[in-house]
Amino acid sequence: MRTVVWQSLSETQQESVLERPAISEGANITAAVTDVINAVRSQGDDALLVLTEKFDRVTPASLRVSQDEIDAASERLSETMKQALEQAYNNICKFHKAQKPQPLKVETQPGVVCEQVTRPINKVGLYIPGGSAPLPSTVLMLGVPAQIAGCRKVVLCSPPPIADEILYVAKLCNIDEVYNVGGAQAVAAMAYGTETVAKVDKIFGPGNAYVTEAKRQISNDFRGAAIDMPAGPSEVLVIADETANPEFVAADLLSQAEHGPDSQVVLVTPSPIIADKVADAVSRQLKLLSRQEIAVQALASSLVIVAESLTQAISISNFYGPEHLIVQTKNPRELLPLLDNAGSIFLGQWSPESAGDYASGTNHVLPTYGYTRTYSSLGLADFSKRMTVQELSAEGILNLAPTVVAMADAEGLDAHKRAVTIRLDALEQCGRLDNLSN
Amino acid sequence: MRTVVWQSLSETQQESVLERPAISEGANITAAVTDVINAVRSQGDDALLVLTEKFDRVTPASLRVSQDEIDAASERLSETMKQALEQAYNNICKFHKAQKPQPLKVETQPGVVCEQVTRPINKVGLYIPGGSAPLPSTVLMLGVPAQIAGCRKVVLCSPPPIADEILYVAKLCNIDEVYNVGGAQAVAAMAYGTETVAKVDKIFGPGNAYVTEAKRQISNDFRGAAIDMPAGPSEVLVIADETANPEFVAADLLSQAEHGPDSQVVLVTPSPIIADKVADAVSRQLKLLSRQEIAVQALASSLVIVAESLTQAISISNFYGPEHLIVQTKNPRELLPLLDNAGSIFLGQWSPESAGDYASGTNHVLPTYGYTRTYSSLGLADFSKRMTVQELSAEGILNLAPTVVAMADAEGLDAHKRAVTIRLDALEQCGRLDNLSN
Ligand SMILES: [Zn+2]
Ligand SMILES: [Zn+2]
Repeated sequence: MRTVVWQSLSETQQESVLERPAISEGANITAAVTDVINAVRSQGDDALLVLTEKFDRVTPASLRVSQDEIDAASERLSETMKQALEQAYNNICKFHKAQKPQPLKVETQPGVVCEQVTRPINKVGLYIPGGSAPLPSTVLMLGVPAQIAGCRKVVLCSPPPIADEILYVAKLCNIDEVYNVGGAQAVAAMAYGTETVAKVDKIFGPGNAYVTEAKRQISNDFRGAAIDMPAGPSEVLVIADETANPEFVAADLLSQAEHGPDSQVVLVTPSPIIADKVADAVSRQLKLLSRQEIAVQALASSLVIVAESLTQAISISNFYGPEHLIVQTKNPRELLPLLDNAGSIFLGQWSPESAGDYASGTNHVLPTYGYTRTYSSLGLADFSKRMTVQELSAEGILNLAPTVVAMADAEGLDAHKRAVTIRLDALEQCGRLDNLSN
Repeated sequence: MRTVVWQSLSETQQESVLERPAISEGANITAAVTDVINAVRSQGDDALLVLTEKFDRVTPASLRVSQDEIDAASERLSETMKQALEQAYNNICKFHKAQKPQPLKVETQPGVVCEQVTRPINKVGLYIPGGSAPLPSTVLMLGVPAQIAGCRKVVLCSPPPIADEILYVAKLCNIDEVYNVGGAQAVAAMAYGTETVAKVDKIFGPGNAYVTEAKRQISNDFRGAAIDMPAGPSEVLVIADETANPEFVAADLLSQAEHGPDSQVVLVTPSPIIADKVADAVSRQLKLLSRQEIAVQALASSLVIVAESLTQAISISNFYGPEHLIVQTKNPRELLPLLDNAGSIFLGQWSPESAGDYASGTNHVLPTYGYTRTYSSLGLADFSKRMTVQELSAEGILNLAPTVVAMADAEGLDAHKRAVTIRLDALEQCGRLDNLSN
């Protein structure tokens, strides 16, 4: 881990040590993904089967996973695993149910009532990557809010063979259809629909560079689908003061480092002693890990920043805007009002990132790569949309008329003015104008 | 206006009559915008001055509008206009203040507390197009939520000369800086910053094809800025039954038609008589309009759909997903629970679209072009971001440990498991584990 003393750096150096590596997809990925999307749009299921054999080297019995297979998966799963998944499910449900918006109705002027109503997005598609190990936690993080929001159709794509844990959570979350399709072809199938795969309105979930590029392409096409948020490498920033337990901090940094070689790992501390102790503990704990090789690569670009003060440490974190922000200080809660630009915040020594990754109840789908400045932690709002409503009474339009007429005049929009005056004329003709004015 | 009877169409025909025209930006716009962005990034203010002279044929005294100029503008404005703008400001404030989120804190398991906190987006940029008439209403729709959300820096760009009405509203909304810059160069300046123009985190506002393309390009660059929502031509769909006043419906269709030649105008009614009467009223009222030529072009592609029933009319509207949805029926409020995929809904005969465009209190920045299926009416949420927080006590991590350990095992993430067990070990060593378990 590279250690820098913040005060010793120029402003340009400060910005440059915190700069994230550019992700260059490369023109070959863009073109390959365009080909896949075009194949799925023109050949539907046939293209999915060909591409699945090509990329996943599997020929699934059918594109759609049958109810029997889902039931069989849950029978094979251990009770311990089922209980863990159910506990996580329950916690995530509780936190996301609490996000249901209150009804909102305001009479802005007498007779002018404005409302905000929330509706579920009708059809959503969840993408769950394959890889060396299954990711049932991601199914929970996408499936639970979709279920609570009340989306009418929820489908899931994942490269075959799909692990039992994923099928079990899909059942818990009442997901309507599960398909044996992965990669860019899965994104294309959900964006445009095929004979078997349902077209959806919005696609959620992580994936490799091909999946990310496919999400970008289909979201730039108005006939495609919306997507959850921009993707980027996972990150943690830990703010630790002299009271922090260096072993805990090291364990948290390592759990970020094991995610992938491109994981961003940053420690900011006003204590040079803690900085040393944590670096030391990282080296020791690293040797115990099965994914040591990956962690080593991530740690190569990791950073320890010695700040002048806790206040400066907080500014550094707010400037960087980490996906995960862990605060291990004497009074972490006191710092909360000062913290900004973070996906999810972990307060105090008993709150490791892995608690939020799996089961505390918060969502682990978070903005990263600096998008914390403008994007939100995934939540119920992302599976819903807000519509506004206005209802004016005759009195309301009468009260509002002078304002609308003056503004329509200023903007030179005649018909907008007439839509109001024609109503005033009607009120006058039936003698209601006098009644209302008095 | 073209009239079709819904039941007489095949499913394919139904989809095709409601299909929106494709917007093809053309490679020349893409390349021209890329050139502008590159010029602004490399030459800053100098590029802005050159481009402003080239495109707006104006040489402003300075890029930033001075406080004196803003004060002078408000002195020139009539009292009537100021009162109208203030009334609109007050109504929009009331409705957007009501959108402030409630604090959210849930104990999902004993000792596991999850929270959602909301923070303003720090720096936002508002774009206000120029053109034949000023658009003070758009300044209100962007400036009010930015002010209420508490954004720390709010800047506004508009092509010079900037109208008095715009400067007056900028003052009302307490906008920090106003710049004499329009077009793609304004978007580039706010996305990347120049010597004079502040770099912002997110850019809001409508614009022509160049502005739209610039917003697309800068939002695809992680060093650029986020944007409000995808753009598209403005739309209205009116659902009217036999009780509707055809003159009112015609006035509402025309106020949409006058926005631009590409405006989408649709009437859906179960009553063939109303369909005829409205078409008739449209022809008559059209002749009274100053923007008749524009309205005529929009009406050329407009559509009257005769439905079998009110229920079918609602399905058609939900399928189309209009930006503005006007409901002029006997009991409009009863229909509200059935309405979906609309930006803003206008209930009943006294609620013309122009009320919402200007002053009812709702926001007139709305998803269009079918994006109502997944995007929301602009609101306070778009000027804020949600972060989650978790704080576990020693008891909390003990309770959550079995779940996290089992899931980390399933996902093969060793370090994630160790971040929990290392804490349990510490609790055990200091003898707290027994106390907590009992
Ligand atoms: Zn993690
Ligand atoms: Zn309008």
